Amino acid sequence: MRTPRVVAARRLQRRRERDAAGLFLAEGPQAVREAAAAGVVQDIFGTSHGLTRFADLIAGARGSGARVSEVTDEALAALAETVQPQGLVAVCAQQPVPLRKALERGPRLTAVLAEIRDPGNAGTVLRTADAAGAGAVVFAGDAVDPYNGKCVRASAGSLFHVDVVRAPDPAAAVAAIRERGVRVLAATGYGDTDLDELADSGGLGVPTAWLFGSEAHGLPAELLALADARVRVPIYGGAESLNLAAAAAVCLYASARALRAPATEERSERGAGPTAQ
Amino acid sequence: MRTPRVVAARRLQRRRERDAAGLFLAEGPQAVREAAAAGVVQDIFGTSHGLTRFADLIAGARGSGARVSEVTDEALAALAETVQPQGLVAVCAQQPVPLRKALERGPRLTAVLAEIRDPGNAGTVLRTADAAGAGAVVFAGDAVDPYNGKCVRASAGSLFHVDVVRAPDPAAAVAAIRERGVRVLAATGYGDTDLDELADSGGLGVPTAWLFGSEAHGLPAELLALADARVRVPIYGGAESLNLAAAAAVCLYASARALRAPATEERSERGAGPTAQ
Repeated sequence: MRTPRVVAARRLQRRRERDAAGLFLAEGPQAVREAAAAGVVQDIFGTSHGLTRFADLIAGARGSGARVSEVTDEALAALAETVQPQGLVAVCAQQPVPLRKALERGPRLTAVLAEIRDPGNAGTVLRTADAAGAGAVVFAGDAVDPYNGKCVRASAGSLFHVDVVRAPDPAAAVAAIRERGVRVLAATGYGDTDLDELADSGGLGVPTAWLFGSEAHGLPAELLALADARVRVPIYGGAESLNLAAAAAVCLYASARALRAPATEERSERGAGPTAQ
Repeated sequence: MRTPRVVAARRLQRRRERDAAGLFLAEGPQAVREAAAAGVVQDIFGTSHGLTRFADLIAGARGSGARVSEVTDEALAALAETVQPQGLVAVCAQQPVPLRKALERGPRLTAVLAEIRDPGNAGTVLRTADAAGAGAVVFAGDAVDPYNGKCVRASAGSLFHVDVVRAPDPAAAVAAIRERGVRVLAATGYGDTDLDELADSGGLGVPTAWLFGSEAHGLPAELLALADARVRVPIYGGAESLNLAAAAAVCLYASARALRAPATEERSERGAGPTAQ
């Protein structure tokens, strides 16, 4: 049985509807739990089995104002984009943070996804950035919608931990980041600076924003030119390049390591939960 | 028009047929070029457009003994697993290297994929291991077939650069690696050793084999117990964990950096081409 509320929620699988409503879908107990902890859940749809199995989670979400509806297996399958959402899908409020506000919080590590259109790649880099201690992830230019279902799933909850920023104009975003005294490093296979040499020279121990481009097209020439340095991950073997997720992991963790001592202090200030808006 | 040769080649999309024939498919100009450089191409199937566009590549492959057949667009589409193989598919000889032989070559860096069943993940880690300078990648236990089409594509040519080893018994493989004096490190989110601390203490500057398990199940307890250390990538933010490709990239590149000076010497000995069998 598809109630009007299920029909309305299902429309959020489309970007236009998400943009118009300012809402998105999170599926599966892990994502719903993180969304509830972030206080952004409006509605939870669950099968009888899902609501019973994750009763503690449901009770918690209800306590913070979420509406809970039991739906049929068929209705849940229609709402979910994966085969096994384990009986739970939530409608959540989008809470993008304006770039200016995110920068005011002084993140020591930021990831900028420039024109990255693959939602799985974007979500994976978001997850890695969170793990490496980034405070903000900027979706710049014609990048994928951060609230795309596949991106939400690939982020494995990290969407709810960091400041998610939308910046339609990548060049303006880079300029704003540099104005705050943050060093902007462009990750590119054709960089003139080697990541290890940069680490050895102490060049990574300052507040940094990494720019990542799409695997297919790399970073636009304009952004490469705006960065403080163009950095390549060294290739020791026969491979031509790394894929985006691997390159981003190596770059972000090189920064995390260089920033380690101060980042530990910052982490305890920030706490493990999501950033309030 | 599907000739008998096209029909036979198409069967290689199935593992049983690949195992029986000792052959596999590589599609697209990049993979076919790397396969030809490795001297493993038996047959090339190309559309009229593909054969013309990549005429230099075709001439080279022909010179080293490959048979070249022009096929219709429909036949090529049937052979290919991707939408855009750019008009070329090659039948290649599998050339797995026995573990003993791979170890005799003294690789300073080795990746062991234990029970990793996702071909995209396995191929991505293979590519990253190659980029980080690994000499061998071991597919251990019930891991995916390294010659699976999706794994070949995700490896982006790296399948042809490193020693690909199949080890049905992971515990025996780990024992054989340790007997050669190679340090075995298990990558696990629950490790008692922090990767950064290991790097700081100089623990990564020795010949190393990294063990990676599947994202769903991690490493089997038996392998965790056999390793010299159980190592976690530090998590600085709210993420619970990294995905497999990102964790492997961080671990392999931490080793590559620690091994850098000697690895550079080794690289020049090995050359950029594939390892002969």
